[in-house]
Amino acid sequence: MDLGSIFLAELVGTAVLVLLGCGVVANVVLKGTKGNGGGWLLINFGWGFAVFIGVLSSAASGGQLNPAVTLGLAANSLVNGDPIDGGEIGLRILAQLIGAILGAVIVWLAYKLHFDDEPDPASKLAVFATGPAKRSLGWNTVTEIIATFVLVLAVIAFTNFPGILGSDLGSTAPDSTSLGNLAPLAVAIVVVSIGASLGGPTGYAINPARDLGPRLAHAFLPIKGKGGSDWSYSWVPIVGPIIGGILAGLVGTAILPGVTA
Amino acid sequence: MDLGSIFLAELVGTAVLVLLGCGVVANVVLKGTKGNGGGWLLINFGWGFAVFIGVLSSAASGGQLNPAVTLGLAANSLVNGDPIDGGEIGLRILAQLIGAILGAVIVWLAYKLHFDDEPDPASKLAVFATGPAKRSLGWNTVTEIIATFVLVLAVIAFTNFPGILGSDLGSTAPDSTSLGNLAPLAVAIVVVSIGASLGGPTGYAINPARDLGPRLAHAFLPIKGKGGSDWSYSWVPIVGPIIGGILAGLVGTAILPGVTA
Amino acid sequence: MDLGSIFLAELVGTAVLVLLGCGVVANVVLKGTKGNGGGWLLINFGWGFAVFIGVLSSAASGGQLNPAVTLGLAANSLVNGDPIDGGEIGLRILAQLIGAILGAVIVWLAYKLHFDDEPDPASKLAVFATGPAKRSLGWNTVTEIIATFVLVLAVIAFTNFPGILGSDLGSTAPDSTSLGNLAPLAVAIVVVSIGASLGGPTGYAINPARDLGPRLAHAFLPIKGKGGSDWSYSWVPIVGPIIGGILAGLVGTAILPGVTA
Amino acid sequence: MDLGSIFLAELVGTAVLVLLGCGVVANVVLKGTKGNGGGWLLINFGWGFAVFIGVLSSAASGGQLNPAVTLGLAANSLVNGDPIDGGEIGLRILAQLIGAILGAVIVWLAYKLHFDDEPDPASKLAVFATGPAKRSLGWNTVTEIIATFVLVLAVIAFTNFPGILGSDLGSTAPDSTSLGNLAPLAVAIVVVSIGASLGGPTGYAINPARDLGPRLAHAFLPIKGKGGSDWSYSWVPIVGPIIGGILAGLVGTAILPGVTA
Repeated sequence: MDLGSIFLAELVGTAVLVLLGCGVVANVVLKGTKGNGGGWLLINFGWGFAVFIGVLSSAASGGQLNPAVTLGLAANSLVNGDPIDGGEIGLRILAQLIGAILGAVIVWLAYKLHFDDEPDPASKLAVFATGPAKRSLGWNTVTEIIATFVLVLAVIAFTNFPGILGSDLGSTAPDSTSLGNLAPLAVAIVVVSIGASLGGPTGYAINPARDLGPRLAHAFLPIKGKGGSDWSYSWVPIVGPIIGGILAGLVGTAILPGVTA
Repeated sequence: MDLGSIFLAELVGTAVLVLLGCGVVANVVLKGTKGNGGGWLLINFGWGFAVFIGVLSSAASGGQLNPAVTLGLAANSLVNGDPIDGGEIGLRILAQLIGAILGAVIVWLAYKLHFDDEPDPASKLAVFATGPAKRSLGWNTVTEIIATFVLVLAVIAFTNFPGILGSDLGSTAPDSTSLGNLAPLAVAIVVVSIGASLGGPTGYAINPARDLGPRLAHAFLPIKGKGGSDWSYSWVPIVGPIIGGILAGLVGTAILPGVTA
Repeated sequence: MDLGSIFLAELVGTAVLVLLGCGVVANVVLKGTKGNGGGWLLINFGWGFAVFIGVLSSAASGGQLNPAVTLGLAANSLVNGDPIDGGEIGLRILAQLIGAILGAVIVWLAYKLHFDDEPDPASKLAVFATGPAKRSLGWNTVTEIIATFVLVLAVIAFTNFPGILGSDLGSTAPDSTSLGNLAPLAVAIVVVSIGASLGGPTGYAINPARDLGPRLAHAFLPIKGKGGSDWSYSWVPIVGPIIGGILAGLVGTAILPGVTA
Repeated sequence: MDLGSIFLAELVGTAVLVLLGCGVVANVVLKGTKGNGGGWLLINFGWGFAVFIGVLSSAASGGQLNPAVTLGLAANSLVNGDPIDGGEIGLRILAQLIGAILGAVIVWLAYKLHFDDEPDPASKLAVFATGPAKRSLGWNTVTEIIATFVLVLAVIAFTNFPGILGSDLGSTAPDSTSLGNLAPLAVAIVVVSIGASLGGPTGYAINPARDLGPRLAHAFLPIKGKGGSDWSYSWVPIVGPIIGGILAGLVGTAILPGVTA
C-alpha cells in the first residue's frame, strides 16, 4: 500500500475512532443528553465499538490508529529482524494525531447544544481528554503502561497467529498491515475488556493520539465556559502508552509461543 | 434479484427492524413494562440487534432498510461510475416506508396494555418517533448528518472491501446487494456504536423511514390518550440522514483507500 | 442422525438452556445474590447466551430446544413440500419438556440458599415461569405470538439462506438439522433482541417447554415458602408461541424472498 | 507443541486472564474508581472478555488456563480411550497457578491508589478471591460444581464438534489443543453466560487457579489495611470446580451425541 493511502486511512480511521469514542463520553457526562449517567459499561462498549468502525474504515493501513500500537509493532519487527520504515511510522503517527483532532472537533459539533448547557468545565474536558480518578502521576503512568501492554500484546497475538482469527489472517498480508475478517471484532472486544478491567484509575487513554489530539482541540476550540486543558497531566497518557506498547512489542514474540514473526 | 423480491425483502426487513427497534423503546419508556427504565445501553443493543434481524430477513435485497443507505449507496455508485436504477431506488424507499409503518403498528399491538396505561403523551410518541433532547432544529440536523455519515461510511467500508468481513463479501454479489456472512453482525455493531456515541442529542433517527413511518402510524392509530405527532420536528430526521448518507456516498470511495468500487 | 441422538441432544440442550436462562432470573430477583437488581439487559444477555450454549450442546439435533421452533419448522417444511416426521417431532417436544424440567431442578439446587431466604413467593415463581407485567390473557397471547413469530422467522432466515451466516450453512445439512458455524451466535443475538424489544409485557416465554417445564418443577419441588404455580396463566406461554411459530413457518418462505426451502 | 511452549502459553494466558478478570472487580468494588458500582453485567463482560484475551494469548497451548478445564479434558480423553500425559497436565496446572499469581500482583499495581484508599478489607479481598453471597460450604460447593460442569461441557462441545464453530476446528489439531477461529469468542460468551446465570451465589470461581493464585497474592502482598484471606472458604473454589470439570469430562462424550472424541 502506498504511503498516501496509509496516511489517509490512518487519518480517517482515527477520526472515526475519536468521534465515536469521545462521543460516548459526551453522551454520558454532558447535561441533558439521552445517555446521561449511562454508566461505565456504556462507555466501554462505546469505545470498543468505536474501534470496530475505525478499523473497518482504515483497512488499507491495517487500522493501527494509535501511536502506541504503531511503535509497539515497530519494536516487535525490530526484535524479529523484520525491516521497519521510520518515515512510514512518522507518517502514521502524524495522521493519527490529525485524525484525532478532527474527530474531536466533530464531537463538539454533534454535541454543541449540550456543551453549551453543561455548567461544569471538568465535564467538558472529560469528553476530550482522560484524567485520573485519583491523581498521582507515577501510579497513573503505571496503570497506562499495564493497560497498553495488554492492548499491544493482544494485537500481536491475533495479527501474527495464522488461523486463530480467520483463515486469511496474516497469510494474505504482503506488508503485515492486513487484518483478517474477524480482526475488527477482536480488537473491539479487547478494547471493551481493557476499559472494563483496567480503565478504573485513569480512564484508559492507551493511545497518545486519542488523548493529545482531543486535548489540543479542547484548547483551541471556542467551547463555551471551558476551563483549562490540564496540560500538567497530559504527558501521562502519552508516555505511559508508548512505554507499554513498546514493551509489549519487545517481549511479545518471546512470551507468545507459536506466534510467527 | 427481481424487483418484486427486492420490494418484499425491504418491506419485511424494515418491518422487523422497526418492530424490534421501536419495541425496545416501548419497553424502556412505557409504564409498567419489565424493561422500564432499563437505560440507554439497553436501547442501543435493542436497536442494533433489531438491525441484525432486519438484515437477516432481507438478505435478498442486501438489507438496506433505510432510505439514507439506499441514497448514499446510489451516490457512491454515481461517483464510481456504476449504473444506478432510479426505479429500483424509489421502489426500495417505498418498501422501507411501508415496512416501517407496518412494524410500528405491530409494536402498538405488542405493547397495547402499556400504551393504555401510560399517562404521558410524550412517552407514547417517543416509542414511534425520535425527538431531540434539546430542540434546535439546525444543530439537531447537524447531529443527524454526522451520525448518518458514519453509518453509510461504515456500510461502504464493509460491503466493498473484499476480505475484511468474510471471504465471500462483495465477490459473490452480482448486483452489489449481497452481504457477506459477518455483515449482519457488523452493521448491528455499527448501529449500537452510533446510538451509544452519537445518539445523545437527537435519539439517532439516522433513517428517514424509521422515523417517518412510525410517526405516520402514531398519527393514524387510535392510541389512547395520545398527543400530537410533532410534525414541526419531523423533517429533521428525514433531511439530516439523507444529507449525511449522500455525503458519505459521495466521499466514501475517496476517503476509504483500498476500498474497491 | 438417529432418533436416540436427537432425543438426547434436545434434552441436554434444553436442560442447559433452562438452567442458564432461569439461572439469570434467579440471580436478578432472589434475595441476596450477587446479581440482585441487575436489570433487564442482564436478563436479556443471560437468556440469549443461554441459548448459545444450549445450541452448542445440541448440534446433533440442530439445536431446536423449543416446541414452537420445532412446530414452526415443520409447518415450513409442509408449505415447501418437504417431508416431515410426526414421530420425530413428538420425540423432540418430549425431550425439550423433560430437559426443561431437569434444567429447572438444577437451577433450584444452584440457588438453594437464596430460594430459602427469599420471602416473596412471586419472586420464587418468577425464576421458573413467565408472568405478565399486566394481566390480560388475550393481549398477553398477542405479544407472545408476535415475539415467537419473529424468533421463528429469523431461524428460517438464517438456517435456509446459503451463505448468509457461513459458507457451510444449509449445504452441509443432509437432514436440515445442521447449523452453520455462526448459527449459535446468530440465534443468541436474536434472543437477546426479542427479550430487549418484545419482552416487556410478558417476559418473553417464546417457548412452551421453557415455561411449562419449569412451572411443573415449581409445582412438585419442595421449595421453601413457595406459593401457587399460576396455572391460570400457564396456557398463554404455550398457545401464543405455538401460534406464532407455526404462523412464521407457514409464511416464512413466502415473505423471505431468496430463502431456499 | 513442546512442553516449554505449553508452560509459557498457559502462564501468560492465565496471567492476562486474571489481570483483566480481577481488574474488573477492582474497578467495580474499590473506592473512587471510574467504574465503581458498575454492576453485575459489567463484571460478567469483564471476566468473559478477559478469557477472550487470555485465550488469544495462549493459542499455543489451546488456552485452557484453568485446572478444571485441564482435568476435565483429561477425564474426557480417558473415557474416549485417548492417551493423556500426566506430566503435561501437572505442568499446565503449575503454569496456570503461577500465571494467576502474577496477574493478581499486576492488578494490585494497576489499582494501587484505590487499594490504598479503600477502607473495607472485604472489598480488597473481593478483588482477589471469590466469596459466597451466603455462606454454606456444602451448597456453595454444589453451585461451583454446576457452574464448572457447564463450562467444561461447553468446551467439549465446541472443541470436538467439527464445523460447529469454524471449518478448521478440530481437524487442524494434531494434539487436540488447537482452537478454531471462533473459539476465543465462544468461550468468552460461555463465561459471560455462566457469570450472569450461575454466578449469583458464589461469584463463579469455576477455576481453582483463578481463585487460589490471587488469594495467595492477597496473603503475601503488602496491601495497605488488608484483612485475612479467608482460607476457611478457599477449598470450595478448588474442590467444586475440579469435581464439576471432571464430571463434565466423564459424561460429556456420552451426553453430547455427534461430538467426536
